[in-house]
Amino acid sequence: MNIYAVIMAGGVGSRFWPRSRKENPKQLLKIFGENTMIQDTVARLKGLVKDENIFIITNRIQALRVRNQLPQLPAENIIDEPFGKNTAPCIGLASVIIKQRDPDAVTVVLPADHLIVDVKKFKERIRQAADYAYESGGLMTIGIIPDRPETGYGYIQFESEEVEPGIHKVSTFAEKPNLATAKRFLASGDFLWNSGMFVWKISTILDEIKKYMPDLFEALNEIERALGKDDFDKILTRIYGQLAKISIDYGIMEHSKKVFLIKGDFGWSDVGSWETVYQLSEKDEDGNAKFGDVYCGKTKNSYIYSLNKFSAVVGLENIIVINTPDALLVCNRENAQDVKSVVDYLNMKKKYELT
Amino acid sequence: MNIYAVIMAGGVGSRFWPRSRKENPKQLLKIFGENTMIQDTVARLKGLVKDENIFIITNRIQALRVRNQLPQLPAENIIDEPFGKNTAPCIGLASVIIKQRDPDAVTVVLPADHLIVDVKKFKERIRQAADYAYESGGLMTIGIIPDRPETGYGYIQFESEEVEPGIHKVSTFAEKPNLATAKRFLASGDFLWNSGMFVWKISTILDEIKKYMPDLFEALNEIERALGKDDFDKILTRIYGQLAKISIDYGIMEHSKKVFLIKGDFGWSDVGSWETVYQLSEKDEDGNAKFGDVYCGKTKNSYIYSLNKFSAVVGLENIIVINTPDALLVCNRENAQDVKSVVDYLNMKKKYELT
Repeated sequence: MNIYAVIMAGGVGSRFWPRSRKENPKQLLKIFGENTMIQDTVARLKGLVKDENIFIITNRIQALRVRNQLPQLPAENIIDEPFGKNTAPCIGLASVIIKQRDPDAVTVVLPADHLIVDVKKFKERIRQAADYAYESGGLMTIGIIPDRPETGYGYIQFESEEVEPGIHKVSTFAEKPNLATAKRFLASGDFLWNSGMFVWKISTILDEIKKYMPDLFEALNEIERALGKDDFDKILTRIYGQLAKISIDYGIMEHSKKVFLIKGDFGWSDVGSWETVYQLSEKDEDGNAKFGDVYCGKTKNSYIYSLNKFSAVVGLENIIVINTPDALLVCNRENAQDVKSVVDYLNMKKKYELT
Repeated sequence: MNIYAVIMAGGVGSRFWPRSRKENPKQLLKIFGENTMIQDTVARLKGLVKDENIFIITNRIQALRVRNQLPQLPAENIIDEPFGKNTAPCIGLASVIIKQRDPDAVTVVLPADHLIVDVKKFKERIRQAADYAYESGGLMTIGIIPDRPETGYGYIQFESEEVEPGIHKVSTFAEKPNLATAKRFLASGDFLWNSGMFVWKISTILDEIKKYMPDLFEALNEIERALGKDDFDKILTRIYGQLAKISIDYGIMEHSKKVFLIKGDFGWSDVGSWETVYQLSEKDEDGNAKFGDVYCGKTKNSYIYSLNKFSAVVGLENIIVINTPDALLVCNRENAQDVKSVVDYLNMKKKYELT
């Protein structure tokens, strides 16, 4: 059994403005420590997936930066989609490319921009999921054991009976709930967070795409036939242009009868906003996370990032300050999700150089 | 009667950091509109004091900028003190210089960095004060009719009897009061704000200095004898080095028996902090005063200054953001007085390029 990885790295991450820009989104930033998020995502596969088996699916404006950040990967493993079409086409494209190399491959599908605390345990779970996917022909999801009634994540409900230690059949996928529902999910004990990480055989996922997304399957066949041809890019662009934007959850996982989950207990976050980054950052005794030349006076529980010039914050609590060479964000931590509105404003004003 | 003006412009204004710096303090900044504060101070004397009769007392690191901002004034009218020694030596120095030109001069002493709303009324009051100072040989102060129990200003108590319409003898000077005392002052009706603006004959103030500050008077005599000599600067520096730092209020006004006040009803502020600037600025419907390329989302009652790059403020109320090319301030409006602590911190860290 050869394990391959598909790392999905096409997001724009506008909630991380002004650090993130369309050509330099969250997954390409050093949010925690010395590595970018995609570098961490690749690094934590060491010993589990060989470099030549790691594929990155990105887009055309980010592909060069991705290559520069991951020089250890074969250049041909960095694939740029002509258009963003959500995760189902992305995974389908990667699958037909990997199928050509190894029809028996088991693939691990990972977002490029998640945080994982216990890498050793993460790899154990992924290996176990790969083994089970290989033997059972199931679609494996990684369900994260929740520690709070989070409303920012989707949930997965599982059947109580274990098919193997830590592995259960999935009964339902649930969208992001409201707080009351999230509390109910947490109390029930049979709902886990949907991490968006999957493990399956190439043959299994392509079979399920054939069954539940026949249009996509047809398109993927056409792409497969064009692989290696001189006009591959042209054909890919033409076909991709016609594809519907559908997530793998909506297109496959919610319909398939062979979905399993493995419980993830390794510490995980999708790092969804500056608020999450604040939560996950080291703080000083006043609860401030400071990066760069920063002075805090009578200021608490705040995240201050200012690598390029001196910043002083006085008399404030629970704020986020992101000071970059060409733009500044000052935001209430409670409004971290509204950062997207700044990017909307900038696009509306056609200030594309800042988005 | 010839009216002269002495504009005191030596302050460092660290409460206006990061816009104000030691070589470019508040009085040299465009805080309101298109003119700097010192330009406004000079402009509002038009028709009252001739340009050649206007003197600026500043310091050596600011003198060149003052000259550049006030090209209409004779260069020799811009006098740089070798050291800041508070207002008594400053006024004394200006007085001996003006005395040489016109021993009968009446001088108006004005801080360079105050805001006055009704310039016409201001000039009427100053003219009336000048007339009374000329006739009576009194020291005239301008007392501002208070509209709130402000704790940031000193107060002047006056005798109820008018010596002339709007002019009263002064009984007491009071330091900045606490809130209870300020309320009592306001209720009493016989306390006005001490604006730090004065009008008197040169001969009167020098007589009073002789009487109440004999050491200063002695030093001023020595300076007077050196006026016009080649080594004047050297002598001035030597003498100034030995002077005590004493305010005119403490040194003279609180002791003199011939102090009067004229009621000022022209709208006045000493513009003491960014909070005051916010209060005095035009606001949009959300109560925000915005300068430069600024986006406010779910943000109210804030002052945002960002001329050099784009700034976005999201989900906040009552904050001050001052974004300059080399430093950023984010401050709660309630902590506007604490901005000084940032400058203290920068000096402590020897980051003099930012102070």
